[in-house]
Amino acid sequence: MRRTIDWDEDAVVIIDQCALPGAFSTLRLRTVDELIDAIRRLAVRGAPALGAAGALGTAMSALRHGADHAAVEADAKRLAEARPTAVNLSWGVRRALAKLPEGGQAVLVEAKAVLDEDETANRQASARAAEAILDRCARRPLRLLTHCNAGRLATVGWGTALGVVWHLHTAGHVEYVFADETRPLLQGARLTAWELAQAGVPYRVLPDSAAATAMARGLIDCVVVGADRIAANGDVANKIGTYPLALAAARHGLPFFVVAPESTVDRTLPGGEHIVIEERSAAEVTEFGGRRVAPDDAAVFNPAFDVTPADLITAVVTDQGILPLA
Amino acid sequence: MRRTIDWDEDAVVIIDQCALPGAFSTLRLRTVDELIDAIRRLAVRGAPALGAAGALGTAMSALRHGADHAAVEADAKRLAEARPTAVNLSWGVRRALAKLPEGGQAVLVEAKAVLDEDETANRQASARAAEAILDRCARRPLRLLTHCNAGRLATVGWGTALGVVWHLHTAGHVEYVFADETRPLLQGARLTAWELAQAGVPYRVLPDSAAATAMARGLIDCVVVGADRIAANGDVANKIGTYPLALAAARHGLPFFVVAPESTVDRTLPGGEHIVIEERSAAEVTEFGGRRVAPDDAAVFNPAFDVTPADLITAVVTDQGILPLA
Repeated sequence: MRRTIDWDEDAVVIIDQCALPGAFSTLRLRTVDELIDAIRRLAVRGAPALGAAGALGTAMSALRHGADHAAVEADAKRLAEARPTAVNLSWGVRRALAKLPEGGQAVLVEAKAVLDEDETANRQASARAAEAILDRCARRPLRLLTHCNAGRLATVGWGTALGVVWHLHTAGHVEYVFADETRPLLQGARLTAWELAQAGVPYRVLPDSAAATAMARGLIDCVVVGADRIAANGDVANKIGTYPLALAAARHGLPFFVVAPESTVDRTLPGGEHIVIEERSAAEVTEFGGRRVAPDDAAVFNPAFDVTPADLITAVVTDQGILPLA
Repeated sequence: MRRTIDWDEDAVVIIDQCALPGAFSTLRLRTVDELIDAIRRLAVRGAPALGAAGALGTAMSALRHGADHAAVEADAKRLAEARPTAVNLSWGVRRALAKLPEGGQAVLVEAKAVLDEDETANRQASARAAEAILDRCARRPLRLLTHCNAGRLATVGWGTALGVVWHLHTAGHVEYVFADETRPLLQGARLTAWELAQAGVPYRVLPDSAAATAMARGLIDCVVVGADRIAANGDVANKIGTYPLALAAARHGLPFFVVAPESTVDRTLPGGEHIVIEERSAAEVTEFGGRRVAPDDAAVFNPAFDVTPADLITAVVTDQGILPLA
């Protein structure tokens, strides 16, 4: 399967990200409920991939319910609310739903267009960011640090922050990538490391809290991450741990790049303080593979995302250009 | 067992910290090799507790080898080198070894004195730090954040950073404690949470990378941590993740306190750049309970400690006073 998420006959097919890196397998989702469940448990995740999921899920509903627009709209609402932070999810739903008056097939055509555009947008955004990084960082080859997974698996294909790595690696400009493991769900250790290994890019996995030490030791030239929602002023919501990474980069004078498709920008929000941050279950922190790692009654603080203020960001790069930061 | 580490007849007895929080059990270590193994796999850990381990291990060797001073000195050297970063370990060994000319019993008496002094020193240091924090922070009750485990389990008894919590809690001044889970070995989730639960202090466990978000949301009044080695200029080596915590505290104008017995101060080192940082195994990051969480051949960056520069530290408080930071 070339794409992370795609349409196949009558179903949404995804790479099962909960099974990686142990197994590469796909899931065939035939109902909106199955898709919502996959979104909630992060079998499909990453803001751009969620945009595709929202659009395809809406198409699945439109094909099923035909003229019953109320049923499709109800499904669309549930889809859009399956996770709150990545703006792409509701954006994808809205784009597909706008074609509902033209019938289910029109909705599907629009959803497929969302997928095609996402891959193109990510290739463009990451190519532009790669150029900006080469302009900004003198050292060759480059030593990059990234957080969570902003690769092929977070998008329909190619990737955003890891898309930058693919461009730079192809040109021979990457010495290695440091991949934050990304607690609590270890998308860095599980997914980013897997993508880097597949692509033959040298990498090291590190605890999130060791990134500042890697910078202090002069092991990193540039930080590059994706985004889940970008406010009008350039504040960026991204996976929890992005903000402390930006603080460390600022301390060490390292450039901090955010790469995302334009669909991640939410111009309706003036600043990051308005972004709704998903709080996830305590079990993500207190359990591992069914084994408890904290006292039975432990309370947990588990926000899935944080907000990095624009003043800590060197540039937000999208397929449309480099955002003017307020 | 009241103490984390103690002498019992002919053996060193420790609380097995690898078994917590699932089980509270003790280990009886009858040879220097068994003790070194327990130190290396962190069954006993925490800088002050390692000072006690070094002293007791030297006493065990002195009692066994009698007049064979060369054998005791060889054991002492191996003990002192079992872990490199916490200066207390070699300090405890040296203190006990200095009594070797007076015989094995004299070495044991000195080692027991190290244990008694550690508990007293930690009570004093943490009482002083509690006062300093009450002076510095206006809010009552206080909302504290700590990293790793600097409690009873990291010392002979009482604790350093958590010792502060015990003083403040007894006086009714603690609303809650946020306990960083502390990757990769989860001493916060496993040990600090357990100690807080035992003491009836409200707490929440959080991923290390969520601490900056807790600060940004105004949920924290003060950060308090222990130390593994403190250089003459006030730079502090402590568990990996302490440095980014200090960066976040500085960004949010929050006081950042370090609490340790005077034995943690290494005045032979002018600055933190001279502190040897232990690099631990890749498996700590890539495996969990025997289950791999990263690709099979993943390389890892796993320094066990980081160095927080003195400029980010509000005060280093020991039993002897508040360190003048250079």
